Amino acid sequence: MNFIELAQKRYSVRNFSDKPVEKEKILRCIEAARLSPSACNSQPWHFVVVDEINLKDRIAKETVMSLSGMNKFTLDAPVIVVIVIEKKSISSTIGSFLKGKDFSLIDIGIAAEHFCLQAAEERLGTCMLGWFDEKAVKKLLSIPDSRHIGLLISLGYPANGEVRAKNRKSIEEMSSFNSYKKEK
Amino acid sequence: MNFIELAQKRYSVRNFSDKPVEKEKILRCIEAARLSPSACNSQPWHFVVVDEINLKDRIAKETVMSLSGMNKFTLDAPVIVVIVIEKKSISSTIGSFLKGKDFSLIDIGIAAEHFCLQAAEERLGTCMLGWFDEKAVKKLLSIPDSRHIGLLISLGYPANGEVRAKNRKSIEEMSSFNSYKKEK
Repeated sequence: MNFIELAQKRYSVRNFSDKPVEKEKILRCIEAARLSPSACNSQPWHFVVVDEINLKDRIAKETVMSLSGMNKFTLDAPVIVVIVIEKKSISSTIGSFLKGKDFSLIDIGIAAEHFCLQAAEERLGTCMLGWFDEKAVKKLLSIPDSRHIGLLISLGYPANGEVRAKNRKSIEEMSSFNSYKKEK
Repeated sequence: MNFIELAQKRYSVRNFSDKPVEKEKILRCIEAARLSPSACNSQPWHFVVVDEINLKDRIAKETVMSLSGMNKFTLDAPVIVVIVIEKKSISSTIGSFLKGKDFSLIDIGIAAEHFCLQAAEERLGTCMLGWFDEKAVKKLLSIPDSRHIGLLISLGYPANGEVRAKNRKSIEEMSSFNSYKKEK
């Protein structure tokens, strides 16, 4: 499978089977994330894999939006991965400050996507979650106050095997050559 | 090549040959980026590919840190890609605000890495750049004041074919199961 095929295959799975996920597959996803690039090679991440089912259920509940029921599907996912933002290197901290941009968010996105792409190669499904009660999740996992959580990823086998068609802007809409939004 | 092999193969190239990059290869890198996931499917990015050599040289100069000479290698790269941060969807904007996290930086990181992974598959080299004079680059490419630039990527054939060994934290250092930094 070439990379574009893999990128096509990865989609946000919101319908999980209860089949448990093999630990060696989880570890290969972590290994893919470990190889990610980051600003000044800071590697500002720590991945907490939650696969104890009671603990996983308690974390899943902290992702569900009570009004709309959004993220309810996480209750069925056998695994949730919590990505903690670790301290940047000094050079990345200075660069982030001078350039007014938190490079560690860029880094966290890259590492999370490496995890999800490896999961897709393993025929596992993932969905990144930006909506969760950070304080509650930190308490459940003994994450210190000084740390923030970047993202959560739900992980498991998709309940059905279909790959959803992607809804994306066209190449012409999202790119141009030698000037902003000029015709190619 | 499986995904972990591809992730191993991608490294930050800082030594480019002057061989020009085929347009169809650039377009496949853009296609890989286009397929990236984003918060609420916002797709908050526009890729400007700069391959006109005079314009590229002027942009490269805006990435070089005058004191240290950092990023001087961009002068030899035949292509620089400028990733502009576009407006988020309303739901992603509300989520970013409520959760105190700019989801578009996470999204930009993912899309930039898709570009770089496809480039690695094409045997091209890339280096993401967070250090550049944003105001000057915006002017050179007619990017409106209302937009910010997320990252630049230098692109070209590596001058030498070697894949550098990666210096990364171990799996044990950067991950744990069911608790923050507890033994597995």
